[in-house]
Amino acid sequence: MADILVFGAHPDDAEFGMGASMVKFVRSGASVTVCVLSRGEAGTFGTPQQREAEMRAAARKLGGEIEILSFRDCQVFDSYEARIKVAEVVRVHRPRLVFAPYHTNAGNPRDGGAHPDHTATGTIVRSALRYARFAGLKDLKGEPWNADHLVYYMVPRAHIPSLLNDVSDYMEEWEEIARCHESQMSIRDGKVLDFLRAMRVAYGGMLSVRYAEGFLTDDPIPFDLPLFLRGNSPPAAQPGKG
Amino acid sequence: MADILVFGAHPDDAEFGMGASMVKFVRSGASVTVCVLSRGEAGTFGTPQQREAEMRAAARKLGGEIEILSFRDCQVFDSYEARIKVAEVVRVHRPRLVFAPYHTNAGNPRDGGAHPDHTATGTIVRSALRYARFAGLKDLKGEPWNADHLVYYMVPRAHIPSLLNDVSDYMEEWEEIARCHESQMSIRDGKVLDFLRAMRVAYGGMLSVRYAEGFLTDDPIPFDLPLFLRGNSPPAAQPGKG
Amino acid sequence: MADILVFGAHPDDAEFGMGASMVKFVRSGASVTVCVLSRGEAGTFGTPQQREAEMRAAARKLGGEIEILSFRDCQVFDSYEARIKVAEVVRVHRPRLVFAPYHTNAGNPRDGGAHPDHTATGTIVRSALRYARFAGLKDLKGEPWNADHLVYYMVPRAHIPSLLNDVSDYMEEWEEIARCHESQMSIRDGKVLDFLRAMRVAYGGMLSVRYAEGFLTDDPIPFDLPLFLRGNSPPAAQPGKG
Amino acid sequence: MADILVFGAHPDDAEFGMGASMVKFVRSGASVTVCVLSRGEAGTFGTPQQREAEMRAAARKLGGEIEILSFRDCQVFDSYEARIKVAEVVRVHRPRLVFAPYHTNAGNPRDGGAHPDHTATGTIVRSALRYARFAGLKDLKGEPWNADHLVYYMVPRAHIPSLLNDVSDYMEEWEEIARCHESQMSIRDGKVLDFLRAMRVAYGGMLSVRYAEGFLTDDPIPFDLPLFLRGNSPPAAQPGKG
Amino acid sequence: MADILVFGAHPDDAEFGMGASMVKFVRSGASVTVCVLSRGEAGTFGTPQQREAEMRAAARKLGGEIEILSFRDCQVFDSYEARIKVAEVVRVHRPRLVFAPYHTNAGNPRDGGAHPDHTATGTIVRSALRYARFAGLKDLKGEPWNADHLVYYMVPRAHIPSLLNDVSDYMEEWEEIARCHESQMSIRDGKVLDFLRAMRVAYGGMLSVRYAEGFLTDDPIPFDLPLFLRGNSPPAAQPGKG
Amino acid sequence: MADILVFGAHPDDAEFGMGASMVKFVRSGASVTVCVLSRGEAGTFGTPQQREAEMRAAARKLGGEIEILSFRDCQVFDSYEARIKVAEVVRVHRPRLVFAPYHTNAGNPRDGGAHPDHTATGTIVRSALRYARFAGLKDLKGEPWNADHLVYYMVPRAHIPSLLNDVSDYMEEWEEIARCHESQMSIRDGKVLDFLRAMRVAYGGMLSVRYAEGFLTDDPIPFDLPLFLRGNSPPAAQPGKG
Repeated sequence: MADILVFGAHPDDAEFGMGASMVKFVRSGASVTVCVLSRGEAGTFGTPQQREAEMRAAARKLGGEIEILSFRDCQVFDSYEARIKVAEVVRVHRPRLVFAPYHTNAGNPRDGGAHPDHTATGTIVRSALRYARFAGLKDLKGEPWNADHLVYYMVPRAHIPSLLNDVSDYMEEWEEIARCHESQMSIRDGKVLDFLRAMRVAYGGMLSVRYAEGFLTDDPIPFDLPLFLRGNSPPAAQPGKG
Repeated sequence: MADILVFGAHPDDAEFGMGASMVKFVRSGASVTVCVLSRGEAGTFGTPQQREAEMRAAARKLGGEIEILSFRDCQVFDSYEARIKVAEVVRVHRPRLVFAPYHTNAGNPRDGGAHPDHTATGTIVRSALRYARFAGLKDLKGEPWNADHLVYYMVPRAHIPSLLNDVSDYMEEWEEIARCHESQMSIRDGKVLDFLRAMRVAYGGMLSVRYAEGFLTDDPIPFDLPLFLRGNSPPAAQPGKG
Repeated sequence: MADILVFGAHPDDAEFGMGASMVKFVRSGASVTVCVLSRGEAGTFGTPQQREAEMRAAARKLGGEIEILSFRDCQVFDSYEARIKVAEVVRVHRPRLVFAPYHTNAGNPRDGGAHPDHTATGTIVRSALRYARFAGLKDLKGEPWNADHLVYYMVPRAHIPSLLNDVSDYMEEWEEIARCHESQMSIRDGKVLDFLRAMRVAYGGMLSVRYAEGFLTDDPIPFDLPLFLRGNSPPAAQPGKG
Repeated sequence: MADILVFGAHPDDAEFGMGASMVKFVRSGASVTVCVLSRGEAGTFGTPQQREAEMRAAARKLGGEIEILSFRDCQVFDSYEARIKVAEVVRVHRPRLVFAPYHTNAGNPRDGGAHPDHTATGTIVRSALRYARFAGLKDLKGEPWNADHLVYYMVPRAHIPSLLNDVSDYMEEWEEIARCHESQMSIRDGKVLDFLRAMRVAYGGMLSVRYAEGFLTDDPIPFDLPLFLRGNSPPAAQPGKG
Repeated sequence: MADILVFGAHPDDAEFGMGASMVKFVRSGASVTVCVLSRGEAGTFGTPQQREAEMRAAARKLGGEIEILSFRDCQVFDSYEARIKVAEVVRVHRPRLVFAPYHTNAGNPRDGGAHPDHTATGTIVRSALRYARFAGLKDLKGEPWNADHLVYYMVPRAHIPSLLNDVSDYMEEWEEIARCHESQMSIRDGKVLDFLRAMRVAYGGMLSVRYAEGFLTDDPIPFDLPLFLRGNSPPAAQPGKG
Repeated sequence: MADILVFGAHPDDAEFGMGASMVKFVRSGASVTVCVLSRGEAGTFGTPQQREAEMRAAARKLGGEIEILSFRDCQVFDSYEARIKVAEVVRVHRPRLVFAPYHTNAGNPRDGGAHPDHTATGTIVRSALRYARFAGLKDLKGEPWNADHLVYYMVPRAHIPSLLNDVSDYMEEWEEIARCHESQMSIRDGKVLDFLRAMRVAYGGMLSVRYAEGFLTDDPIPFDLPLFLRGNSPPAAQPGKG
């Protein structure tokens, strides 16, 4: 059982995409399990063994659980078997809230850079959550489970988020966890964390906080009055800026 | 001072568009003021006097305040003067949360039916909230005020909402308040309330509740973990339906 | 041979999505065949036998033909074999007008709720219609056939339709046909017909009629002058409403 | 009284944008009035007198009526006065079907080239049709009138049409009428008619006919069964092409 | 080795979609290889042998190289194997610039007519370019290669291009090359070249040149100051036209 | 005369939005003039005198010219007079390339934060460039001039750019110029430059460079072969990252 189940295609997707939110969730008392589909073995940097060790280290530091599936890196495709496999994980963990990489480029045809494993993971999870509910699916083990919400995170790309999580107080812990993926620190000419931090500053700017992580949903979000009434009234801004 | 300030172009916009949410807000203890820009005097049904009486009756029943501005029906246009007028209302009421009719058809070019006064009202309110913050705007009376959130409601039209408010428990009170606009009960061949109720059923269907009202925002919404963890786990649905 | 061929993934898709239009078509003299890809056997309610009996009852009441393919529920995927199978059905029935569930969420990323079998059915039918025309496709039996139009219906979801069919006079017959799917009457807490009716009221509101069903096309629609000149001039509406 | 009322900002907009459709309408027995907002006096080519003579010649050749309003070229802006002026024209002619240049670039931000008078004309007409219905609008003369349909044409630009009118049989007459605007024949290096013809070939290709003119609507279009059943079954196409 | 590698699903895709640009590239000194996935054997017109001869003739006339893969017409689907096969071609030719048919209808749901092989080809090429870079992909032969740019061409359909190539000086050579696909000259009732030419006139109109071919990219384009400063200052246009 | 003319609504728009590109342009030998519509006098920070001094200091440091118009802060609206005023500036400076803040939120309804003066400036400039070409516009002084290109910059907001300018080598000079706007350094809690730098890192990430500034255009961009062939072949990336 986990309150929150986070899917990723590769060992560092969850930490790089929404790691500070995971820290915030765990610190607020929620249980978090990260489920990684592959060991990222097609990558230029790091062996599968090294990468598995890195994700286990990150999970320990986070205080979450980890589960590793046997998909192959660069071979994540939506199929009936893939949906069943993921739906079984959902039925085991019985989460209220599920995260996955965003499943489509449709809202932003310019998002050319998305790794096809990422969009495929989102697509599989989306159908798997539905299948997990169906009592009549004979191929699927476990008790039916209805995860209430599916929220997508962005493996750093160009989508406009519809939800922003203020993570200003969790950036140092985030950096420690992200650094567990040591073999990946040389990508983007060694500037990968600078880039990931800049994305969080840019999203923070949309919310008038220092750092935020961005998310998307398929479905409209329930309106929550206290969320809107509780506020932090930033000081009056200046015309050309606000 | 009001927690919530709701703008409408015509006397019945707020009640027809988000009346059940207003009931829910007031019943949960929030103070609500409705600010109507015009008396709807270009309408086919009802005199300005009658319509003012109707909106006052609706406000009484709701338990909210009302303020009526002197815009002319069918002559609501975005201008500096209009923004200043609305910004002054904002500075007087100092709300945390502001509602207005949705300001654009850009996201849905098919929404041909929107009354131009509605989109103009949304556009004016949007800039007025910004102006209300500016200390250097000499033409604008009152103390600068930063309303934290602007949320748009839909005077019944074809937009896809990004926020849905479950109003299943407030539909009877909503109907009473909507019926205060007696002069308008003959529009849509006398079926206006049937149509408005059907829209709420349709939106409710997106949220798996009986009735909902739909809203939009310009900006991403802050992520609120309790909102997503607290759930009501509807019973497992059936494949072809879910 | 059929004038109109309607594809559905599950036994009740066509009746729930465009049942009143099917009644209207048959009553106006057109022949309608419904082709269902699966028996909906993964569903929570109803056995395959029961569901087949229900769809046969609905077809009888409608006065249409029915054809049942051997796809598996929750396993409808676009593939060469699937396209060939559907193209053969098209070559057998030789329809002028084909209907299928809408094939994409691209125009509305919020439409998270679509069952993947529905979008897959639309995708397969779309390519199958093209394949049915190709003389050089050796794997495909039957004489080449060019169905003139493909129109998509909406298994009740959040898309904005581009075509609306006034079905105000056919709602009672629709309800009788929809009720044939007895095993499905308990979904949405037993309110499924209320929900489907409300969607038709909402679409009706866009056309100024009581009830309508909504459709989409991929291609521009031929302009038809008589359609636009023949009108029903609804009485002058009122400003805040029209 | 006119069956069809076509608005244009400048003397040649209607003929260049939908001239072949106007020929087709008149030849099928419908009465057509063209209402031009300005004399195009800011143009590089042609005096206002010359341009008025040209549009009168085109109207004669078409067999339609013409009405010229006193807007100024490059000064067409949406305003209450503009809406009232246009609504009065609508109340005089009492058309079933109204055409105007498309009113927005929202659906296609790439459409940078649209003359602002064109989009403004569409915007004014859209609100004017609504105002023409309102009994309570004291500033507006004439009897309320509800034009049933507003369809937009494209002064040649990059929008994707949602309606296509086959005009293959009317291209010679179209060219004669377009050539009445003699002063404009030197634009696009004298290739203006070649360009306009090519646009019609490109739109024709979407409909599998030789020449078509493209249109858009704000609202969903009523579904018309005979339109879809009547067909012309083009011969089976070839894979790479169809 | 080739500067430019152009993928097509069927023998005539590249020549019909971007043939004049290929002529322009070769004439400016760049080396061009066309890689065709299938022989178009499902087509109504032409045998595989004939079509292969036609594409070889076109390549000779162009002055480019050709490579023919063994995909089957109407069976081009995105899969791991397809990506690997195409990635190997990329590693052999080591191009700076790659072209493929546009990979999605997401930006334009109206583009119903796209052959599924075309979008599938674009999708495969897009992932294959990424795979060609990965050192860890054991299944993939050859040295890693990073093609700098992927640009999509349009097998004549309704997308709005984001890049336009002025091909006014290369239309005669284009026509010669296109005519090599003799077996296809009878499609569109023998008017196929007229249609393709009209599309180029329509795109030319967006760039104020006589003929252009249109392209799209997934990613933002690098800003190039000389491109924007070098200009050809068309003569001042006229209001209603510009 | 200027090669490049950059419009801004407020004194710091151009420097904050595209300052590093302006440095790059000037360093490469192009002449740049910045035209500011207002002195930003409605702002919370800085007097008009101070802000004028700041923009003059920035222009000196840049090595560009400056021109200040007499629009009022928070009162920039699209009108005939505004277009004429801006068109006259265009006719005086006769630029090849013009920049302005992006003119619409249509492509991104979430971009709620745009100051209305910014979008209005883009809208005015867009029409003014067209008017500058028209010989028949009697109200407009100066010789007709056709600026070849209009490119929009983003006063830091959430749009997805279609053009990216690598400014990695100009960030130090950019910071010096941005710091000239001393009165604005306290906005965003004194973190304004951090935020602006982070946006450039985020855009840089889309182009695989350290820092970039983002731009948009209305019209398709001319295809430039050397731009695409000249490349910098970044080293092979890693699967989960590329």
